[in-house]
Amino acid sequence: MQDDALIRLSARAAAAGIARGAFTAEALATACLARVAAREGAVGAFAHLDPALALAAATACDRAAPRGMLHGIPVGVKDIMNTADLPTEYGSRLYAGHRPASDAACVALARAEGAVILGKTVTTEFAGRSPGATRNPVNPAHTPGGSSSGSAAAVADFMLPLAFGSQTAGSVVRPAAFCGVVGYKPSFNLIAIGGTQMQSPSLDTIGVFARDVADAAWFVAALTGRTPLLPAHPAAAPRIGRYRAATADQADAATRAALDRVAAAMEAAGATVVAREPFPAFDGLDTAQGIIMQYEGARNLAWERTAPAGLITEETRAILDAGAAIASETYDAARQQARAARAQVDSFFGDCDAMLVPAAPGEAPRGLDWTGDAVFNRVWTLLHLPCITVPAGRGPAGLPLGAQLIAREGNDARLLAIALLAETALAAG
Amino acid sequence: MQDDALIRLSARAAAAGIARGAFTAEALATACLARVAAREGAVGAFAHLDPALALAAATACDRAAPRGMLHGIPVGVKDIMNTADLPTEYGSRLYAGHRPASDAACVALARAEGAVILGKTVTTEFAGRSPGATRNPVNPAHTPGGSSSGSAAAVADFMLPLAFGSQTAGSVVRPAAFCGVVGYKPSFNLIAIGGTQMQSPSLDTIGVFARDVADAAWFVAALTGRTPLLPAHPAAAPRIGRYRAATADQADAATRAALDRVAAAMEAAGATVVAREPFPAFDGLDTAQGIIMQYEGARNLAWERTAPAGLITEETRAILDAGAAIASETYDAARQQARAARAQVDSFFGDCDAMLVPAAPGEAPRGLDWTGDAVFNRVWTLLHLPCITVPAGRGPAGLPLGAQLIAREGNDARLLAIALLAETALAAG
Repeated sequence: MQDDALIRLSARAAAAGIARGAFTAEALATACLARVAAREGAVGAFAHLDPALALAAATACDRAAPRGMLHGIPVGVKDIMNTADLPTEYGSRLYAGHRPASDAACVALARAEGAVILGKTVTTEFAGRSPGATRNPVNPAHTPGGSSSGSAAAVADFMLPLAFGSQTAGSVVRPAAFCGVVGYKPSFNLIAIGGTQMQSPSLDTIGVFARDVADAAWFVAALTGRTPLLPAHPAAAPRIGRYRAATADQADAATRAALDRVAAAMEAAGATVVAREPFPAFDGLDTAQGIIMQYEGARNLAWERTAPAGLITEETRAILDAGAAIASETYDAARQQARAARAQVDSFFGDCDAMLVPAAPGEAPRGLDWTGDAVFNRVWTLLHLPCITVPAGRGPAGLPLGAQLIAREGNDARLLAIALLAETALAAG
Repeated sequence: MQDDALIRLSARAAAAGIARGAFTAEALATACLARVAAREGAVGAFAHLDPALALAAATACDRAAPRGMLHGIPVGVKDIMNTADLPTEYGSRLYAGHRPASDAACVALARAEGAVILGKTVTTEFAGRSPGATRNPVNPAHTPGGSSSGSAAAVADFMLPLAFGSQTAGSVVRPAAFCGVVGYKPSFNLIAIGGTQMQSPSLDTIGVFARDVADAAWFVAALTGRTPLLPAHPAAAPRIGRYRAATADQADAATRAALDRVAAAMEAAGATVVAREPFPAFDGLDTAQGIIMQYEGARNLAWERTAPAGLITEETRAILDAGAAIASETYDAARQQARAARAQVDSFFGDCDAMLVPAAPGEAPRGLDWTGDAVFNRVWTLLHLPCITVPAGRGPAGLPLGAQLIAREGNDARLLAIALLAETALAAG
């Protein structure tokens, strides 16, 4: 099979091809590395790449009996996740050349299933606001989104089929939408987070990038052993709320039109779509999320905050300093608000299986100094709900738009089946 | 002041002495290090000690303007917490000589307040079951408890006034009780946990050891900036439930008698103590805690589980393997049970401010191969409640007993004032 065909395979198809001997893990890794070599100069998705190491892992797969679902599949790892055999710099000069002693839990779980870690992908500093050098592969003048910038861009640009991200506000769903791939943030704590740099233990959630819904489900099923996540077929006749949050006006016209198309396609495929108005119990939750994120971030990154000038960006330092200045009473009130809102989630969904909402206000903003607004992500992350974005066409600048679906905590399997319906319906429409 | 007097000072008194120039931080560190030199062979509290480094930190305090509440105070750090200037081995051969790049959040917060990190204290392997070499300073034939073995023993043996521990089942309260000191596990997530090796993100909680209640409160207030934690005076007329859990029969006669004494002393000091029967909503919660701990532990320590033979103990490997074999459905059910129980905590307390329960089934068991049973700790850790143990006399073998007080999540200030009442009442009795 030609390299160009190999890099476009889904992870499932690639695993099947390796399993039946159609091609080797080495051939797949070689094709991915050739794509990286051709495109990395334009995209800048990788923080660390060691082609010889990746090829050695792939040839070891070819020589060994299959170890798991991910046997021979190239995977990208966000550079806030520790790797024992590659540097881990957390997006910061402060950790230049840092070599952890061990793999993060999610990396070890992927390797245990046979994954080939292709490289470390660019993150904003400490998965915060200060961006890395990654460009949007669709248009390099635009941000790829963040903080999981390199993972989203690498998957979108066919450098690898699967990658890890993490979301504390909107760092999986937003870059996925901006780059035109699927981004899936599972329910809180579904994928083990040990060995990943902590920002906010109340919010930090490992997520994944893939080019289709089934691949995202398959990746997380492999990592967790949760085979019910694998959607046997698109959800039959789900009931979808078209939720209009209090912040809905921040979505631009192209995004609203894209959601109209998604809703219509899902209805044509058997879903019932109902309009849902702002839910008062969630008022102010995005502010509460910001308070919790900044307060916890300043304390969990207390060592990093003491770094000498020049080793962390002034943008990061200002955010950490602002977080350190938040009073405990303010934080406690925000946590109390979140707890009360979590108790209302069931009535928020009511008779709906999922809600359809924007993934982001619009296309990826122009420029590389800001990864975009997480206004359509913060509340769902705070509530620990599973979220997934599926590509939903392009906007006026020719950049991707995303449609986000969310469900009750723990209802990941149903959410994935519904996302598969949306994806299938859009492809048919 | 003589060394023997310096090492017996409370942290508050030591800080006041340094502040008024009665003695230096260097003199205090020197006294503590002399105590360690004299006693470490018998106790084995330290995993790593660098006297020159500790003294340099102390003399730096003496030369600088005071930085915070802990200015010049020696602190012990459990060796699952990263330190940039001392090895961090997580109690395991697997990490022999490991040197982290940065300080754990709690260490950085302590240093920011001026603390002198005296050394790293012994932990069981990965804060699990496989014990380290620490002995109970009261009787070296007995366990000090675990997993925060070295921190409890070092504080009890006057090697230092304050130390960090962590609790996933009973790893702060139990060793504190066994060694005869105060162990305080705050409400979940009160002290930032970043940079501490993760076992179970649903349970892991940073706690502290001190020789009196006010020191424990003062340490946590310094770390968190939560000055309301400082008890101005013992709680006036609190209402205390003498809670008899379904597992209450596992407490021995000496422990029950010690709790009787504590209850009587608190009543004499103005508390109302009422008997409380087993709370059915909490049935089976200790089993649920064990499931969550083992399931999450196996996944968060996925890299460690792949270690070659001899680098982790077979006991640890067996526990990790057992955790990996737990079905996701079993884990999900345990989490659901915990969630439901958390919703009942308010009615569990009812009109009581705190519950009085055993800290452990009895005195520290004889032998060093088992750190003791966490049966009286698991449920409270799972429910995220603040817990504190105060020394409550000795048992038939001459070893310490502990009385544990627990309160609603977030009611740490009230709990500390109640614990101060218990401590004061016992001293008067």
